[in-house]
Amino acid sequence: MTAFDDLMSFQRETEALAQVAGRLSWDQETMMPRGAAAQREEEVAALESVLHARRGDPRLGDWLASVDDAALDEANRAQLRLIRRSYERTVKVPAALAAAIARTVSRAQVTWIEAREAGDFRGFAPLLDEVLRLRREQAAALAGEDGDLYDALLDDYEPGAKGADLQAMFDRLRPRLVALRAEVLGRPSPLALGVDFHEDGQMRLARIVAESFGYDLRRGRIDKAVHPFSSGQGHDVRITTRTVPADPFNCLYSTIHETGHAGYEQNIDAAYHLTPVGGGVSMGVHESQSRIYENQLGRSRAYCGWLYERMRDEFGDFGIPDPESFYATVNRLKNGYIRTEADEVQYNLHVLLRFDLERALISGDLAVADLETAWNDRFLADFGYAVDTPANGVLQDVHWSAGLFGYFPTYTLGNVYAGCLHAALRRAVPDLDSQLAVGRTGPALAWLRERLQRFGGLRTPRATIEHAAGMPVSEEPLLDYLDAKFAGIYGLKAA
Amino acid sequence: MTAFDDLMSFQRETEALAQVAGRLSWDQETMMPRGAAAQREEEVAALESVLHARRGDPRLGDWLASVDDAALDEANRAQLRLIRRSYERTVKVPAALAAAIARTVSRAQVTWIEAREAGDFRGFAPLLDEVLRLRREQAAALAGEDGDLYDALLDDYEPGAKGADLQAMFDRLRPRLVALRAEVLGRPSPLALGVDFHEDGQMRLARIVAESFGYDLRRGRIDKAVHPFSSGQGHDVRITTRTVPADPFNCLYSTIHETGHAGYEQNIDAAYHLTPVGGGVSMGVHESQSRIYENQLGRSRAYCGWLYERMRDEFGDFGIPDPESFYATVNRLKNGYIRTEADEVQYNLHVLLRFDLERALISGDLAVADLETAWNDRFLADFGYAVDTPANGVLQDVHWSAGLFGYFPTYTLGNVYAGCLHAALRRAVPDLDSQLAVGRTGPALAWLRERLQRFGGLRTPRATIEHAAGMPVSEEPLLDYLDAKFAGIYGLKAA
Repeated sequence: MTAFDDLMSFQRETEALAQVAGRLSWDQETMMPRGAAAQREEEVAALESVLHARRGDPRLGDWLASVDDAALDEANRAQLRLIRRSYERTVKVPAALAAAIARTVSRAQVTWIEAREAGDFRGFAPLLDEVLRLRREQAAALAGEDGDLYDALLDDYEPGAKGADLQAMFDRLRPRLVALRAEVLGRPSPLALGVDFHEDGQMRLARIVAESFGYDLRRGRIDKAVHPFSSGQGHDVRITTRTVPADPFNCLYSTIHETGHAGYEQNIDAAYHLTPVGGGVSMGVHESQSRIYENQLGRSRAYCGWLYERMRDEFGDFGIPDPESFYATVNRLKNGYIRTEADEVQYNLHVLLRFDLERALISGDLAVADLETAWNDRFLADFGYAVDTPANGVLQDVHWSAGLFGYFPTYTLGNVYAGCLHAALRRAVPDLDSQLAVGRTGPALAWLRERLQRFGGLRTPRATIEHAAGMPVSEEPLLDYLDAKFAGIYGLKAA
Repeated sequence: MTAFDDLMSFQRETEALAQVAGRLSWDQETMMPRGAAAQREEEVAALESVLHARRGDPRLGDWLASVDDAALDEANRAQLRLIRRSYERTVKVPAALAAAIARTVSRAQVTWIEAREAGDFRGFAPLLDEVLRLRREQAAALAGEDGDLYDALLDDYEPGAKGADLQAMFDRLRPRLVALRAEVLGRPSPLALGVDFHEDGQMRLARIVAESFGYDLRRGRIDKAVHPFSSGQGHDVRITTRTVPADPFNCLYSTIHETGHAGYEQNIDAAYHLTPVGGGVSMGVHESQSRIYENQLGRSRAYCGWLYERMRDEFGDFGIPDPESFYATVNRLKNGYIRTEADEVQYNLHVLLRFDLERALISGDLAVADLETAWNDRFLADFGYAVDTPANGVLQDVHWSAGLFGYFPTYTLGNVYAGCLHAALRRAVPDLDSQLAVGRTGPALAWLRERLQRFGGLRTPRATIEHAAGMPVSEEPLLDYLDAKFAGIYGLKAA
């Protein structure tokens, strides 16, 4: 056994334990009896403490010091890079600080739920301030003397990304999205759905659309959860969805979205399973897969035509007269406060707002005490109407209470990545629409699998996208796609 | 922090991790996608390796050496006794042997499934021989120079029990059970069920009977599994059942049986949760709870009268004309090869057979090569007809392939314990039958909770039963109960 073999053998056990933690979290959101919550916290904490100890285990340091990088092939160099990165980030943060963060965000999430229900940001602010203080302290430990605090946090979700680069890109996105939104909302609205859709039928259709997007149910399962998510890697990748009687699209497009996340994990080369390379490479790249499945493919005119027939098979005549109207209904814009309910045009505006505010919080330019006002001002500026209550504004997302500063931009980055991939995919599969029109995603998914998914964490996130798309990352393809799509649906002048 | 505090804090984390392992195993039997099996093995192995390391952690030895037992109260002395016992048993077994056992039983269980399907004991024998050899080696390490090998293994399942004592008791049981069985089967048989019972209705009734036996669904849940089991401790204790259209009693009495196991865990004093005292004290005591729920209460004339009405509510007229006939049908004896399908009279005969054979295997008096013949001879002697195929004989149970020598006697010991408890319960709750006749188990369960369940592992198994029943453990109450019950149903002369 060489040092590298020992290292990988230790790491493999860590990865297996991380899968166990993921399964536990799946259970918590889908199966766990309500009365088990307090005990479960203790079980999760025990497992996290084992994982934390392993990630900073001194033997890792020894092995890493004695491995000869040059003797390794590309995949094993990638393994080494990912293990080294995780180890260095773990040991840079003092154990007492890591424990304080875990304790505080656990408390903050409970307080956030109460504050959101009460519509009381001020009651939540002191604890959020404490979370922010601890995360800045962590960022300082990670960044070193000259490092950028925000970049240090962002690195957890999108390794290698820089806040300033994202800022520049997002500043180009924002005005065009604001303008497109205003134009679209000035036009007559497509038909809305007007009847209820029984939940059993929604779940049957959820299964059909998941399978139409290649979800392998021998290595996964679909359950309901309050907030849909995908969970697990390798041969056990599960998805969840939800049902709302008045809104079957919530169920169906949550399902397709999570199928994108799950498909990425299921399609990573099995040789990488239970290794660092064996998982999706970043949040942004993950989101690119969920978004291209959900939007560029799932909300396309062609796929909507197929889905319309499946909807009629299940629900009969539901008041939308033809596939073209159905396509418009699926892609209908309306005003709203909530990020997770937003359409393709408005979604990124919600994210850019959060990105700007959290960067200012981390840099110290914005105080938590002023956060609610800043949120409300920005929302009014971009959307043209005022936030009515904190639950629809600054208190709507769990992220900050959970300490997840640096996470939000990966949502929009994922959309930008999806735009690039979609442009390349259209060139590679010229008859994509005639395939989607009969519910066949096979050629598109084969391209994604071959060009991107199978590699897992072999390359950096940006290199992963650029390898697949064959172009530098840019927001242009996304914007061009949105302009063209919504011009078509809403009868706008072509840009 | 004293050494005792440190010890308990470490132990609490171990107990929490053990709960995680239990949840993982529940998932495997109920929810896991089939294709995840190989990966899951690796996940389970990683967690087991963490648990094994913790159970033999040298710090435990240091803490145990420096704690002052005399300064502790009764509960904490019990904690210390259980931790010391687990630590000493763990460190006595060389790590290489423990790993070899884990590997071999994993392989043997797969081979056993194939052998059972093929009806081929000889193909399985060499691997079973290897399992036996390793477990005897382990027993020798545990027993020390003068210790008994079988007792050393039995101690894992029923701490403190001795094979010779069980042998003496079982030798008194066997002739009376053989005689009772022969007498009953010489009489006309009660009605059998003649129609199918839809599985949704069975599951609805399963929920009703579980709740009638006090199962707390806020801290548990009911799912289906191939082999019903109960899983978890404290505030997350889940049960499973199964449905067979022709045999609703399979579902209902599996449910009541598992509710007995789960009720025991749910009713242990919450102050003990996630500590060694916080779980059921032994397999035998656990089985006493599942059996008294299932048999002495659930198969009583009074409860059957109530259940008959619930069956008619769900299934309408199902061909059994009245409660008295239903009671006889529920308790009907018939010939059969399979232990898990056996009735109250014959069940223990199946167990005694296995106990005698496995003691002989461990002592070396019986070779694996002669096991099938020995099984078949003994079966013929006790049941009066020959085993037709190994799947109905020596290959029917998973236990030996899993290395679980010493486990079988706890089933009958549980029945014996249940007999003692039931005699005491009848005296303590004189109107028990009028309660059960309206589906009220409350007074009986309150007595079990107060006298036994809440104490968890505070006392040894035998002391637990004797404290609750107020009498020395004896097989007499069980035999008297069986004689009287089946004399009533089958119109035998009173013994």
